[in-house]
Amino acid sequence: MDIFTAIRERRSCRNFLPDPVSDETIEKLLEAAIWAPSPANNQPWEFIIIKNQEVKENIHKESRVCKKRLFEKSGWNWIDRYQVNFLVEAPVIVAVIGDPEKAGAHKFLEGTEGTYQHACAAAIQNMLLAAHALGLGALWFTLFEKEDIKKILELNPAKDPVALVCLGMPAVMPTPPPRKDVKGKTVYMR
Amino acid sequence: MDIFTAIRERRSCRNFLPDPVSDETIEKLLEAAIWAPSPANNQPWEFIIIKNQEVKENIHKESRVCKKRLFEKSGWNWIDRYQVNFLVEAPVIVAVIGDPEKAGAHKFLEGTEGTYQHACAAAIQNMLLAAHALGLGALWFTLFEKEDIKKILELNPAKDPVALVCLGMPAVMPTPPPRKDVKGKTVYMR
Repeated sequence: MDIFTAIRERRSCRNFLPDPVSDETIEKLLEAAIWAPSPANNQPWEFIIIKNQEVKENIHKESRVCKKRLFEKSGWNWIDRYQVNFLVEAPVIVAVIGDPEKAGAHKFLEGTEGTYQHACAAAIQNMLLAAHALGLGALWFTLFEKEDIKKILELNPAKDPVALVCLGMPAVMPTPPPRKDVKGKTVYMR
Repeated sequence: MDIFTAIRERRSCRNFLPDPVSDETIEKLLEAAIWAPSPANNQPWEFIIIKNQEVKENIHKESRVCKKRLFEKSGWNWIDRYQVNFLVEAPVIVAVIGDPEKAGAHKFLEGTEGTYQHACAAAIQNMLLAAHALGLGALWFTLFEKEDIKKILELNPAKDPVALVCLGMPAVMPTPPPRKDVKGKTVYMR
């Protein structure tokens, strides 16, 4: 698939068919992920491939508690309507874990300590584009509290769960949400 | 260009020819950038297209001061050898600016406040892949202190300069730095 097509047509998928995703396909996505750039090529990413249903259910449970807390703090009514069943329905969830120890020079630079997360985000974007090209649906999910996800995945507490990527054959592909015109977001300094 | 080729062959370019990059080309890259996903489609990115030589020189100056501070804090000798002349040689630098106000639900969730930056990082990755497909060289640059860049670009202090992307025709394309085998970075939970 052409790169511009993949970028333009990739969607956030929230409805998955139960068909399994093979390890071979997952490996293709991870291989795409790790060719992302990272500061000083420190490759601060790790991946947990969650196919275990109990673990997915624990994540789902945590996400519902998180939604409740979010409602209490924000008062936003829409939160209750935002269903997160894709967390149990997706045949696989890839947890993308960042390593703050690999922040390199950024440990010493005010305000840029999070660049290892940016590298993980670039790796995730590669993964989403590759998934779309292979006919898979994918969702970049971050509606969780990190400490809870660390417990569920039994992570080393020093590691950072940057995002969960839900993957599977799409049951429904949503229409593209609109984008604001880039001209209104761009300034030239000539 | 095929998506997998673009992902695999994209390089971080640090040597640029002086040939200008047209506004039309830059707009293609920005159009690719804004099709990145973002939490609740909040599109937390803005772009400053720097073609002004004086501004580039100020960024270059700041980066050299930053390198000096970094050496003082870390004692790392390699820093002095890392030349940042690409900051004045690249015909254009795109500053990617994030808006922390657009963090949405993440303002209320412990540890995920930085997700607006992740969306900007995904937009940058789209931009780098698109640049490679169009025959341009690009560098994702973050060796700066944010407060200094805010002053140089006369940013609203509440905004966040996530990265500078140097762009131009490549004078030299580096060989790919190796990647650690993805198998050593992957765990399955079945």
